[in-house]
Amino acid sequence: MSGQLVLLRHGQSQWNLENRFTGWVDVDLTDTGRAEARAAGRMLAAEGLRFDIAFTSVLQRAIKTLWLALEEMEQPWVDVVRHWRLNERHYGGLQGLDKAETAARHGDEQVHVWRRSYDVPPPEMAADDPGHPHFDPRYAHLDARVLPGTESLALTLDRVLPYWHDAIAPRLKAGETVLVTAHGNSLRALVKYLDGVADDVITGVNIPTGIPLRYRLDGNLNVVESGYLGDAAAAEQAAQAVADQARAK
Amino acid sequence: MSGQLVLLRHGQSQWNLENRFTGWVDVDLTDTGRAEARAAGRMLAAEGLRFDIAFTSVLQRAIKTLWLALEEMEQPWVDVVRHWRLNERHYGGLQGLDKAETAARHGDEQVHVWRRSYDVPPPEMAADDPGHPHFDPRYAHLDARVLPGTESLALTLDRVLPYWHDAIAPRLKAGETVLVTAHGNSLRALVKYLDGVADDVITGVNIPTGIPLRYRLDGNLNVVESGYLGDAAAAEQAAQAVADQARAK
Repeated sequence: MSGQLVLLRHGQSQWNLENRFTGWVDVDLTDTGRAEARAAGRMLAAEGLRFDIAFTSVLQRAIKTLWLALEEMEQPWVDVVRHWRLNERHYGGLQGLDKAETAARHGDEQVHVWRRSYDVPPPEMAADDPGHPHFDPRYAHLDARVLPGTESLALTLDRVLPYWHDAIAPRLKAGETVLVTAHGNSLRALVKYLDGVADDVITGVNIPTGIPLRYRLDGNLNVVESGYLGDAAAAEQAAQAVADQARAK
Repeated sequence: MSGQLVLLRHGQSQWNLENRFTGWVDVDLTDTGRAEARAAGRMLAAEGLRFDIAFTSVLQRAIKTLWLALEEMEQPWVDVVRHWRLNERHYGGLQGLDKAETAARHGDEQVHVWRRSYDVPPPEMAADDPGHPHFDPRYAHLDARVLPGTESLALTLDRVLPYWHDAIAPRLKAGETVLVTAHGNSLRALVKYLDGVADDVITGVNIPTGIPLRYRLDGNLNVVESGYLGDAAAAEQAAQAVADQARAK
């Protein structure tokens, strides 16, 4: 028995466009992002993939990317499960700030550390900040102490993996075909786990938006093969565009 | 809105009686254990508690304790959810060994460290040991890499808490009355979290078997009050009996 897993990063959001730290802020897709989502759906359809279940975060840019991809694949009936553990990395006090401005204020080097170190979280968001997740009704059922005010990539991984193990992995072990539509860093956490990527390497791995990344897994969930769908050069170019965004301009 | 939580440690098992390290080995209750479970049910009924849901591990000593308590309470219809994350701490290579024999072999001091330190796990069980959880069909749906071959209390807590946050806490935040029937160390992990017990203190906290521990929680899941049901002196005596078991005889 072996499963297939497809990871899909949401298309461009309004704040990707404006080069602002987004994290858990619930920003919508741009028209470009919507087009990316549809294009991803066409790539998945071209591979003949039929999904048994789809997982996503509770943030609209991921949910809508999933909807558009499923619509384009003509598989709108696939069960969709949303979970907070698949949310983007929480960017703490940087959320909402323009990336170039943050770099100008804190210096390129500090911003680089926050973005690219494995275990250094940005400054924590104040607990009384109206943007703190414990004020958001979608997290009201949760113990507020589990809701992050900031996260490193390491903390993001610690938060994502329990959901992988309890909800996603069992479906793959049962031989199902699973789609996970999420975010740059929640997907990076899964890639780190699946491919056994070292701490200091994963922070340099850039997952392009809107280009499905397929894994074929054996019955023990070891990776048999993996790769981006569609044109390899286009995937490389898209990943480079993400990397370039990290630099203050 | 505020919830009530009752923690109940399973009654005496065959290996408790024989003073052997049990961990994830699926040992049955003794007649004494069954009587303890029924007595717990009577204590819960005497308090007029009506449960909305009950959680337990996938180990029969906890499941049967829950069944007997629910039967005695005349609430057999309460939904029961089993989950591996509520299992006992995995005792690694010590599982199956007589505690006194282990102490004689490794020395009282080393055994004391394994039992009572917060973050020192016992020697790991070999991956090809037929007792390793990855050979057990009840864990076949899980990624084998998440299945422990040994655990410290710290690792047990890391494994229990995601389930607390995703499955149990939301029910309490919704104002429900929740029963968790589990094991000495999985319950110790919850007590540590709820009461904010320090690492070096929690290892000395002994939860007696068969005596319900009730928490009243506020809407933020802070503890308003907590205490054992029934006769306080009996609870103290039972906890002391557990502590005594730690010593090699």
